[in-house]
Amino acid sequence: MNDSTARLTPEVFPGCPRPVAGYDRVVLGHGSGGRLTAELIERLFLPAFSNDMLAALEDQAIVPLARDPTDGIAPRLAFTTDSFVVRPLFFPGGDIGRLAVHGTVNDLAVGGATPLYLSAAFIIEEGLALDELARVADSMREACRSAGVMLVTGDTKVVDRGKGDKLFITTSGIGLARAGPALSIRNARPGDRVLISGTIGDHGVAILSVREGIEFETVLESDCAPLHTLTRAMLDACPGIRLMRDPTRGGVASVLNELASGSNVGVRIHQTAIPVRPEVHAACELLGLDPLYVANEGKLVAVAPAADADRLLRTMKAHPLGTHAAIIGEVLADHPGLVTMISSIGGERVVPLLTGEQLPRIC
Amino acid sequence: MNDSTARLTPEVFPGCPRPVAGYDRVVLGHGSGGRLTAELIERLFLPAFSNDMLAALEDQAIVPLARDPTDGIAPRLAFTTDSFVVRPLFFPGGDIGRLAVHGTVNDLAVGGATPLYLSAAFIIEEGLALDELARVADSMREACRSAGVMLVTGDTKVVDRGKGDKLFITTSGIGLARAGPALSIRNARPGDRVLISGTIGDHGVAILSVREGIEFETVLESDCAPLHTLTRAMLDACPGIRLMRDPTRGGVASVLNELASGSNVGVRIHQTAIPVRPEVHAACELLGLDPLYVANEGKLVAVAPAADADRLLRTMKAHPLGTHAAIIGEVLADHPGLVTMISSIGGERVVPLLTGEQLPRIC
Repeated sequence: MNDSTARLTPEVFPGCPRPVAGYDRVVLGHGSGGRLTAELIERLFLPAFSNDMLAALEDQAIVPLARDPTDGIAPRLAFTTDSFVVRPLFFPGGDIGRLAVHGTVNDLAVGGATPLYLSAAFIIEEGLALDELARVADSMREACRSAGVMLVTGDTKVVDRGKGDKLFITTSGIGLARAGPALSIRNARPGDRVLISGTIGDHGVAILSVREGIEFETVLESDCAPLHTLTRAMLDACPGIRLMRDPTRGGVASVLNELASGSNVGVRIHQTAIPVRPEVHAACELLGLDPLYVANEGKLVAVAPAADADRLLRTMKAHPLGTHAAIIGEVLADHPGLVTMISSIGGERVVPLLTGEQLPRIC
Repeated sequence: MNDSTARLTPEVFPGCPRPVAGYDRVVLGHGSGGRLTAELIERLFLPAFSNDMLAALEDQAIVPLARDPTDGIAPRLAFTTDSFVVRPLFFPGGDIGRLAVHGTVNDLAVGGATPLYLSAAFIIEEGLALDELARVADSMREACRSAGVMLVTGDTKVVDRGKGDKLFITTSGIGLARAGPALSIRNARPGDRVLISGTIGDHGVAILSVREGIEFETVLESDCAPLHTLTRAMLDACPGIRLMRDPTRGGVASVLNELASGSNVGVRIHQTAIPVRPEVHAACELLGLDPLYVANEGKLVAVAPAADADRLLRTMKAHPLGTHAAIIGEVLADHPGLVTMISSIGGERVVPLLTGEQLPRIC
């Protein structure tokens, strides 16, 4: 491992200033949304493309429309992109098309932006049944309708059999950024409260149960949903919200670690406060998973000043997508960069950033 | 074939109102940029996402920033997306990263827009060497610099070995749309002249020669280049340009067929006027290819009123990327929808839209 690392020193390879954690090849964990993904981005992509907007590492970039200051005050756009490689294409509660639309809508919404326009690029493996593709397109149409966005441009590429996996979709989205200060993972302050909009782990467990052919007494469904009306209601009720994030790949634990590190604060959560469906809890026990690391596709984590937390919680609970919202923890000045959890029996343990890959191709 | 087609009737499947040319599975030709791609888009995707901006089938969508008319006059954005699946990743004159940046920049530029911001989404096959990935990232940085655009947001997914092919990149781009009437494949009028900015077929032949291990006396290089300064110079010199298109996948023949059909006009080109490098001509002879159908990545086709054509040609020739520009044909009222070519020996033949796939994964 050391030999291969040595090949990636700055002298040999200017685009890769530091070794990527001792790897010389991409492994599945580099797509986990956890530590390896963070290292790949920080050590390989950021040095290549350094600019303030990308380096902010938000789920969306806020960009001024006109860069020439002589143009006067210009509206600001939010811009985001995500590839979707979920397997299987169809699962309880959704499919890759719905996921692609809502995932991009949500990345705009949690930044406080109003989603407006989407693009969709399809990479199709030769041999995909056209009726599957059409079902996905139908599902995307319905998802666009429900999210109030318009798909305005697209692309289609076909790769030879065995060089893809049925269908990958990349959606990009443009939204109108809200006026006022940007929401950011750098904004959390000691004393703030951490909220979640509902039960966690539903999406990942739904995918895994269908993929592994596991049957439960009730059908577990993905929570895949567009969050833009929830975020708007939250920002209207509580303009002082510090940040929102949708805990997809890597789950709630990854978002909490990102904000602990981004805001240089500690985060403490309470296991008993975290809403988990009994069937998701049971499935996680069976599969050896921790729901904190399992992907969600219709939930958000929010951080708000303590004085606003109860009002914000009431607003969330009044929204159909926030019925099970809860205050799950607080931001601390102690142990900056670290996330801990008070367990149901009262012990406190560290909740680290995921190192490897828990659930590949969950979104 | 008829049996499978029958399954795709409107009754059975609302998202696919007409059978996709008798296919029930995706074949490589659906990614060719020719007739099958057009049918897939028209019969499967457009019915699902029908809106005027998408239905215009331009390489970029022009969208107003604020949809609420009470907001007053809003700036208009150009928005485009493309997936890149080229094989191999590195080739003479470029690589997948450079292609991804310039391809998206060019889709904005040929619409008359000023490219501003890019997103990049990476789908990586497990096992890709990190130094290859870093070389691609470096190349993208340099391409962004030379095109004056900023990469502001991105995504990374990893798929298991054997479910991808090293690296696919999807770039989306935002530009500021120019004031005035939109350039469009619907704008060509009888009497207009058709211009090309330089030699054709360079990119496709460069890819194919390295892929097939064919050696020529000179190294054939891709023409991969950003066209935004050329398009700006052209629009400054000749604001009445009807349309511009970059003839990538499917080549010049596809663009000419799209405009013949989009503008409901005939197009006649002259073989002797079309610039082709001798080595590209030789390679095409050897490989049984017609350079009219071979992809370009740093060229554009323009249509302009006859009175402007000579001035436009001089402007193009004065630009480093237009040295070999030429007037190659004219727009006719006769035989609307049809493209014909007067051959070097004086005969006239139809130049149809590509039906199957000539060169898979060329971009």
